[in-house]
Amino acid sequence: MPIPAPAADSLAALLGARFSTSAADRELHGQSETFHRAPPPDAVAWPVSTEEVAGIVAICHEHRVPVIGWGTGTSLEGHALATQGGLVIDLTKMDRVLEIRAEDMQVSLQPGCTREALNTELRATGLFFPVDPGANASLGGMAATRASGTTAVRYGTMRDNVLALEVVLADGSIIRTGTRAAKSSAGYDLTGLFVGSEGTLGIITELTLRLHGQPEEVASAVCGFPTLDQAVECVTATIQSGIPMARIEFVDADAARAFNRYAGTNLHEGPHLMVEFHGSPATVKEDAQRFGELARDFGGTGFDWATTPEDRAALWKMRHGAYRACLALRPGATAVVTDVCVPMSHLPAAVAAAAQDIREAGLIGPMVGHVGDGNFHSQLLVMPGDEQELAAAKRVATRMAERALAVGGTITGEHGVGIGKRPLMRAQHGEAVRVMAAIKAALDPQGIMNPGKLVPDVN
Amino acid sequence: MPIPAPAADSLAALLGARFSTSAADRELHGQSETFHRAPPPDAVAWPVSTEEVAGIVAICHEHRVPVIGWGTGTSLEGHALATQGGLVIDLTKMDRVLEIRAEDMQVSLQPGCTREALNTELRATGLFFPVDPGANASLGGMAATRASGTTAVRYGTMRDNVLALEVVLADGSIIRTGTRAAKSSAGYDLTGLFVGSEGTLGIITELTLRLHGQPEEVASAVCGFPTLDQAVECVTATIQSGIPMARIEFVDADAARAFNRYAGTNLHEGPHLMVEFHGSPATVKEDAQRFGELARDFGGTGFDWATTPEDRAALWKMRHGAYRACLALRPGATAVVTDVCVPMSHLPAAVAAAAQDIREAGLIGPMVGHVGDGNFHSQLLVMPGDEQELAAAKRVATRMAERALAVGGTITGEHGVGIGKRPLMRAQHGEAVRVMAAIKAALDPQGIMNPGKLVPDVN
Repeated sequence: MPIPAPAADSLAALLGARFSTSAADRELHGQSETFHRAPPPDAVAWPVSTEEVAGIVAICHEHRVPVIGWGTGTSLEGHALATQGGLVIDLTKMDRVLEIRAEDMQVSLQPGCTREALNTELRATGLFFPVDPGANASLGGMAATRASGTTAVRYGTMRDNVLALEVVLADGSIIRTGTRAAKSSAGYDLTGLFVGSEGTLGIITELTLRLHGQPEEVASAVCGFPTLDQAVECVTATIQSGIPMARIEFVDADAARAFNRYAGTNLHEGPHLMVEFHGSPATVKEDAQRFGELARDFGGTGFDWATTPEDRAALWKMRHGAYRACLALRPGATAVVTDVCVPMSHLPAAVAAAAQDIREAGLIGPMVGHVGDGNFHSQLLVMPGDEQELAAAKRVATRMAERALAVGGTITGEHGVGIGKRPLMRAQHGEAVRVMAAIKAALDPQGIMNPGKLVPDVN
Repeated sequence: MPIPAPAADSLAALLGARFSTSAADRELHGQSETFHRAPPPDAVAWPVSTEEVAGIVAICHEHRVPVIGWGTGTSLEGHALATQGGLVIDLTKMDRVLEIRAEDMQVSLQPGCTREALNTELRATGLFFPVDPGANASLGGMAATRASGTTAVRYGTMRDNVLALEVVLADGSIIRTGTRAAKSSAGYDLTGLFVGSEGTLGIITELTLRLHGQPEEVASAVCGFPTLDQAVECVTATIQSGIPMARIEFVDADAARAFNRYAGTNLHEGPHLMVEFHGSPATVKEDAQRFGELARDFGGTGFDWATTPEDRAALWKMRHGAYRACLALRPGATAVVTDVCVPMSHLPAAVAAAAQDIREAGLIGPMVGHVGDGNFHSQLLVMPGDEQELAAAKRVATRMAERALAVGGTITGEHGVGIGKRPLMRAQHGEAVRVMAAIKAALDPQGIMNPGKLVPDVN
């Protein structure tokens, strides 16, 4: 349903030209990076302050208009699609770094600030924000989806690095959660509740993040392996040995091929690990040496070390471009992206079974992963409109998720639930989905906050 | 009000002799470590399984009987007092380690297992559970209060080390939260919600914890400082320098005096830091050296290194005995224990202001603290029955909390809210207390789960 006229009038009065119902603005905010599709939203708003967000949500609350937060639109699970219509709140005009408190290793910022913009601002402070999902996502979006990525094995996920939030609730009221202290046991962990709530409980309007010291020394390398099993078993052994990896990423033969074609690299077209070490020169040397020995035990060869900042940037740019590179393996294709995460000891079997499933289904599905966390992705390429292929890809994705659950893992390590994983929520959480639904109903009784996402129907 | 007869009959039928209304059993479960006082509970139950806990809570739900969880009774904020009567569920018979998964560095266990018992079981695995609040608390209780302690600066708090829970909800239903994967973005972080919920949302009946590798090398030391300011400024400088401390504890002159009297030590009666380093022999040596240089810059002298396990055990036994040692400074006294936590840059001023307040109030209040987190305690000694002295101690405690809030800190870093910090919840959280109350009402509509704790009255 379109926005009711009184609501549209109030929004236009509040925001002027920063409220739009034009087809062009709506189309731009109806896109999805993956195969998920929905009609565009009914309108788009670009607030510039917390007070404006509160005003927008209060109007939507009064008129029961769905409210969907929008960061950079890089979600892979359709989080920002207006599946039930309504208003998209585009937060890109709220992108300021508000305060860097270097002595406390903290920063306060607005949700539309991207991780690259933040790290550019931090460069001279000796500090950085490590969470790195690949895409240059907004930090509000990263908090809302509990993002992580290549460095979580060392620095944790958004759960570990968000200290405090300001949130606009479903009725338009504004709350603050968390503190600037390193820890607190003062009541329910509301910060933790809003991190990963995907806009279904409120709109994040300010974040306080933990920062980390820029490592004195950084060394990165890529290393080939004869077989997928050997590469993954090397990861498990590395993590169990306690070597403090800053990144340890898996790339399968198809993904290596995609990098060669798309990024002009010259990798052998087999499985690889991409690794990075952070620390003092002495510890980085020791860690790299220990890893090198382990890798050789598993048949690792052709270590290519990137020691200059430029070489390292090229290496991780290649890794971060994996999604586009893999799409380019099949021009015109879109993707069903899997995101299981399993306990470390189950990783080799999980990856091997996934590879077999993909092969048997006759799909192209390059695999990459943050394997130091037990988290890996397959990007199942499907042609838009080919319903049979889409169904096959979804079957493979569901089997991977079911296998992860069978060993105590999760259906999504970092992409979030959105639309895509919602049908699997009960399989993962059982009766606990009722608790999620009860919390959702308590905080958003009208169900206007990003409806149709995350929380499954429980009745 | 006593337990209604039909409820008592049902509980007796379920539990036999493991349900008691005897005065002796009730008195034992009506004790508090600190100045908080309440009448004993109306009855005590000792379940041996999750199903029994579920059965007990279902009966209490039917008859609207308050339910209070009990671990080891070492809470400092009256968490386990039956302030509104009801049934204490004593979990000490559910104390088994269920499964150690060494290859995944995880353990599953029952809530009554204590941290010392767990670490004894883990000794041969090369792994340990680091969270260490001092008291030999139950791990269920530690999760329920979001405990931390001396090692949080390195290994995090219970928030960071609980991966999954089994919880009995207010209606007697059983849910599981979290997974065995290192990370998950599959919906609301219910594990994080129950950690720190102090039994007000459910009873934890099983925990899955992260384990850590036993450090190859450990070195501990105690070091004296000329003034309180210098000791605390040394902590701030140490944390800002990025030296990876495993512990860094502050002890003031009164606490040093208490140790000398109670533990037979021979400390100079001035401020001290107690530190510990974990790592490889080379990194421990380097870290200890860097800390030593910093400490000397702030006037630190008389480094006393404990390198043997026995010496280290004696050192930390002394620190862990601080509460009893300080009580013994004034025979017959009980204590109002403060627990503020502030951003690191505000620590020196916060400690100095606290010391001045205590002095001006004419109180004896030795201070110790997990200062690497910005967290410190004063133990304000009061004689039972001296209402004037109690009021003075509470005033000092409240001023410390207000000062912590003024710089973005928290009223409680690790002890939890219980009864004691409840009146300050609105000052810390503002309108966010309404969100806590909404969650409480959604999950426990009858208000039977540890009523009168944590969540303030919001109307």
